[in-house]
Amino acid sequence: MTVRGLSLPELVDACVASGVGSVGLWREPVRAHGVEAAARLVRDAGLTVSTLCRGGFLTATDPSVRADALADNRAAVDEAAALGTDTLVLVSGGLPPGARDLGAARERVAAALHTLAPYAADRGVRLAIEPLHPMFASDRCVVSTLEQALDLAERFPARQVGVCVDTYHLWWDDRAPAQLTRAGESGRVFAFQLADWVTPLPEGVLNGRGQLGDGVIDLREWHARVDAAGYSGPVEVELFSDSLWARDGREVLTETVDRYLRHATGPP
Amino acid sequence: MTVRGLSLPELVDACVASGVGSVGLWREPVRAHGVEAAARLVRDAGLTVSTLCRGGFLTATDPSVRADALADNRAAVDEAAALGTDTLVLVSGGLPPGARDLGAARERVAAALHTLAPYAADRGVRLAIEPLHPMFASDRCVVSTLEQALDLAERFPARQVGVCVDTYHLWWDDRAPAQLTRAGESGRVFAFQLADWVTPLPEGVLNGRGQLGDGVIDLREWHARVDAAGYSGPVEVELFSDSLWARDGREVLTETVDRYLRHATGPP
Repeated sequence: MTVRGLSLPELVDACVASGVGSVGLWREPVRAHGVEAAARLVRDAGLTVSTLCRGGFLTATDPSVRADALADNRAAVDEAAALGTDTLVLVSGGLPPGARDLGAARERVAAALHTLAPYAADRGVRLAIEPLHPMFASDRCVVSTLEQALDLAERFPARQVGVCVDTYHLWWDDRAPAQLTRAGESGRVFAFQLADWVTPLPEGVLNGRGQLGDGVIDLREWHARVDAAGYSGPVEVELFSDSLWARDGREVLTETVDRYLRHATGPP
Repeated sequence: MTVRGLSLPELVDACVASGVGSVGLWREPVRAHGVEAAARLVRDAGLTVSTLCRGGFLTATDPSVRADALADNRAAVDEAAALGTDTLVLVSGGLPPGARDLGAARERVAAALHTLAPYAADRGVRLAIEPLHPMFASDRCVVSTLEQALDLAERFPARQVGVCVDTYHLWWDDRAPAQLTRAGESGRVFAFQLADWVTPLPEGVLNGRGQLGDGVIDLREWHARVDAAGYSGPVEVELFSDSLWARDGREVLTETVDRYLRHATGPP
């Protein structure tokens, strides 16, 4: 998503050229390219797929909308398996029209997971619940904190349901570090994503994430916390950013690798 | 602030006409009118001032900026006392340039309160720490949750420092109801403000609050919770809203009273 202007073949080439061995993919470009062809493209280049983004949107009350969402999530699991990644990221969904009860919406997510988690496990895919910043609570994700995500995940076996830790969504939360330890203890950190927090936020607040080092998040400290929680998987940089999208994707990827090394790893 | 287009005399007239007996004032229009004249205007109309908004912005590290902020807060206390309100609302302030440590910034707020709280108490004024939505954590308010606000407030006597509960900032937080109970038990709910949550958020996310009933917050439930916490003071409606500000303030005030009665009080 950081370099969404690149086609899938261009993305794969740019990853290889930049020494990036693992790439998080989104469903739309994968489906546009063809799932099997995308899997072959990535594999033949020697890359692995870190995660597939994303399933979820499981908060509807309307039965036919719920059935469609479950079917779509099963398809997402199948796509993840075909791509050879073991992790599907889930964004829970917001409040359906007229609803005001966030807790009840989270319970509907849990109910859906009872169906989806075993289906995914049978295909070698784990579900990573991603808490999104509270500014998305009404329209995108009723799971706003790592604590809420873990409260959901822990109803399921640790090999089936875990969490996706994204600095952009969690940086403000003084309770998140302890929850990260909790997630690590049960082996539920399934994915780690970096983005920086910059203001002013743009209209709609979706596409204003900051390039690493441009904002206020102590990315190095978050990386160390995730390391200390026992996570040793790929680190994704996920920058929804109108300003980055306006630039050449190859240049943005090179810059991002450099920013990662300078702002998220090693001694300060 | 809901009817910022009205001058102070127009606001007072509109409150009287609408049967609103208590009004929350902001410092800028009060100072423009003259503090003593504003106090007389409100008093002569038979109104009381619920709170003065706002002090705060106490997170700077630079000594001269801190000194200026403390002086400005003492002035805000003096203005509150002159207006006859016992409550000054504080917005903590964001991260100063280059800073990344929210916890350290909250400690600087605490340090400032050690100076300000006794000063205010000597003048019959209580300080109400207002947690702002986490989307404001970097640039406006490092206190994002009711829990953080209470952790600060409880370092001081309950007659000196408490909290301002605003539905717009707290509605998403599943931990807020228990914290509201905690606040009630120590008598620290000093102010209660209503606004509804609507999306999409506008650029800058400041002026997109929803008129009561237009959004997703269960205002009636929040009102009941605040009642249950033992709060029996005035209820303020604080709508930063470009769309409301574009309309006639008297009409907006009438509408707001109606919305309050229909969406925030009584049986559903």
